[in-house]
Amino acid sequence: MTGPRYTPLAASLPATVPFVGPEAQERDTGRPFVARLGANESIFGPSAKAIAAMRDAAPDIWKYGDSKSHDLREALAAFHRVTRDNILVGEGIDGLLGYLVRLTVGAGDTVLTSDGAYPTFNYHVAGFGGVLHKLPYRDDAEDLDGLMEEAARLRPKLVYLSNPDNPMGSWHSGDRIAAALDRLPDGTLLVLDEAYVEFAPEGTEARYDVDDPRVIRMRTFSKAYGMAGARVGYAMGAKELISNFDKIRNHFGMNRMAQAGALAALADQDWLDEVRGKVAASREAITRIAADNGLTALPSAANFVAVDCGRDGRHARAVLGGLAARGIFVRMPFVPPQDRCIRISCGPEREMELLSRALPEVLSDLR
Amino acid sequence: MTGPRYTPLAASLPATVPFVGPEAQERDTGRPFVARLGANESIFGPSAKAIAAMRDAAPDIWKYGDSKSHDLREALAAFHRVTRDNILVGEGIDGLLGYLVRLTVGAGDTVLTSDGAYPTFNYHVAGFGGVLHKLPYRDDAEDLDGLMEEAARLRPKLVYLSNPDNPMGSWHSGDRIAAALDRLPDGTLLVLDEAYVEFAPEGTEARYDVDDPRVIRMRTFSKAYGMAGARVGYAMGAKELISNFDKIRNHFGMNRMAQAGALAALADQDWLDEVRGKVAASREAITRIAADNGLTALPSAANFVAVDCGRDGRHARAVLGGLAARGIFVRMPFVPPQDRCIRISCGPEREMELLSRALPEVLSDLR
Repeated sequence: MTGPRYTPLAASLPATVPFVGPEAQERDTGRPFVARLGANESIFGPSAKAIAAMRDAAPDIWKYGDSKSHDLREALAAFHRVTRDNILVGEGIDGLLGYLVRLTVGAGDTVLTSDGAYPTFNYHVAGFGGVLHKLPYRDDAEDLDGLMEEAARLRPKLVYLSNPDNPMGSWHSGDRIAAALDRLPDGTLLVLDEAYVEFAPEGTEARYDVDDPRVIRMRTFSKAYGMAGARVGYAMGAKELISNFDKIRNHFGMNRMAQAGALAALADQDWLDEVRGKVAASREAITRIAADNGLTALPSAANFVAVDCGRDGRHARAVLGGLAARGIFVRMPFVPPQDRCIRISCGPEREMELLSRALPEVLSDLR
Repeated sequence: MTGPRYTPLAASLPATVPFVGPEAQERDTGRPFVARLGANESIFGPSAKAIAAMRDAAPDIWKYGDSKSHDLREALAAFHRVTRDNILVGEGIDGLLGYLVRLTVGAGDTVLTSDGAYPTFNYHVAGFGGVLHKLPYRDDAEDLDGLMEEAARLRPKLVYLSNPDNPMGSWHSGDRIAAALDRLPDGTLLVLDEAYVEFAPEGTEARYDVDDPRVIRMRTFSKAYGMAGARVGYAMGAKELISNFDKIRNHFGMNRMAQAGALAALADQDWLDEVRGKVAASREAITRIAADNGLTALPSAANFVAVDCGRDGRHARAVLGGLAARGIFVRMPFVPPQDRCIRISCGPEREMELLSRALPEVLSDLR
């Protein structure tokens, strides 16, 4: 009696997971977190109109969601001044990245990213047998020029760039990114992950023709729109590329309440403005708390701040552990020298207050 | 300026989709359906407690769902008297089938199913380069003996069997299925799709050791639990197989409200009993309506009834078209001779009444 025969690729994959969620950590320690500042979720929450729309949609949950997410794509198309056929709605950027990698990356295919950038992208590339090349960060930012030089040399299937960057919060101007498209070799697709771009200064969003076949843009309702638990992301790109996702995607994969919530969230840009203001205030609060403790907060264009703990990764990990022991969930970069930092998500005053009380204790313990 | 380079497999895939959803059909015709009886959704809806749980979870949607769906898996484990490690929760059976095929099926690998069985399974097999072998139905049922004989000959990676069957509503006893496991060749995994088993007579659910490595069981909250739009399915199987999904699945792919709703739905087995009663009454209603119109309803162990329209696929398609023109959404089998039938989902009296009024008109028009 033998088990199934896995593909050689599946058999070769490690059992590691990209992230351990806060609930899993809580179960492991038996202690709930009092401040959830580790997953760049928006504690400020979604628009009240989005919550109302999801609640209103609950009794209709017996129906499958619209497999084409037509209304949401229509609204997104109007919002971004593109056509519906330039937009694909999917199960978060994580899900969309998985589909994109599946469409383009086979065994041995080259993919380029930055060392320390989004682990779930790397997870998908490995999961389809791709070979990842990683370029170090430069000055705590993804090295746009370096990536373009490496791309010209390696001619990868994909180049991943997040702007603003996670986990460091650094950013490039949209103009620089649009200009970089001309440096991509033929057949290399830029995966522009703009999960956090709603928090970034004017001019960070790259402007280019949406039908440009050299780039695909990823956006989400998980961050600024405060709907991480809904799983709604979208990709924007050339019609032909977007239509090819239909060959492989889980057509009926979208939650119906999530579709309704995202539609309402998009319509409430006033709330988004309010969240932007709250996030800016929280970035300042984190920066102040860091300074009060002799630490340096890095500039951030996202809803989190990387705080330089002043020494190496081991020290930052100890700070993170001390915060966790006091019920404060934060994360940190994986790769040196960025791992000298911890990454703290923005949050309301209550969370900032808890952080400001815990951090001096943690640092004092470590002295 | 060229586009991305797709994998040879992705480039070779057709642009066809497994199903056109009812919303898409409504947009195409400009007319909304008045009775939605085509997707085997449960118009009876979910438990009121599930709706309440989803509504209560809505304000927490800013948090990612638990990547391990721990509480739901714990509850399912208790319900099925297995361990949590025997259970994987995922984005509907569709999503789980996709993951399973990805784990096991590579280019050229053989997979066995019945000709006319679940198209989305076939879509996934084709999507990963598998070679599908299809066995005809026998007496409007999936041919369990024939499948086992073919499996012994072909030694496929996977054999797909739905019990009860969709689209015909036929079923095998659980004992026959459990006995069939011993006929599987080494290394062939039986994919037992029990999406509709909650509607089936006692004894339809196959009983075997959950750690048996020769079979994986697929279940869902989309049908009897009335939560198709939530996208919650689960797989049960040997721990090693279940754990291997962690290598490739979208770990943070579950909607948080859906997790809460499924947990509440599972706890409300009284509602499930009530739905079973309503579905049984509706099966009788459909059978009666068919007979009143000189048509024959097939016995069904699911929440739909295949109605033999008495002639060929072209005629059945005309009946289906006539019903659609009168606002009644139904579907039909794709393959002869099963395509002599239309497949009508169960529903409340209102829907049955609309069906009973429309069907004679449609048949009269066709005479």
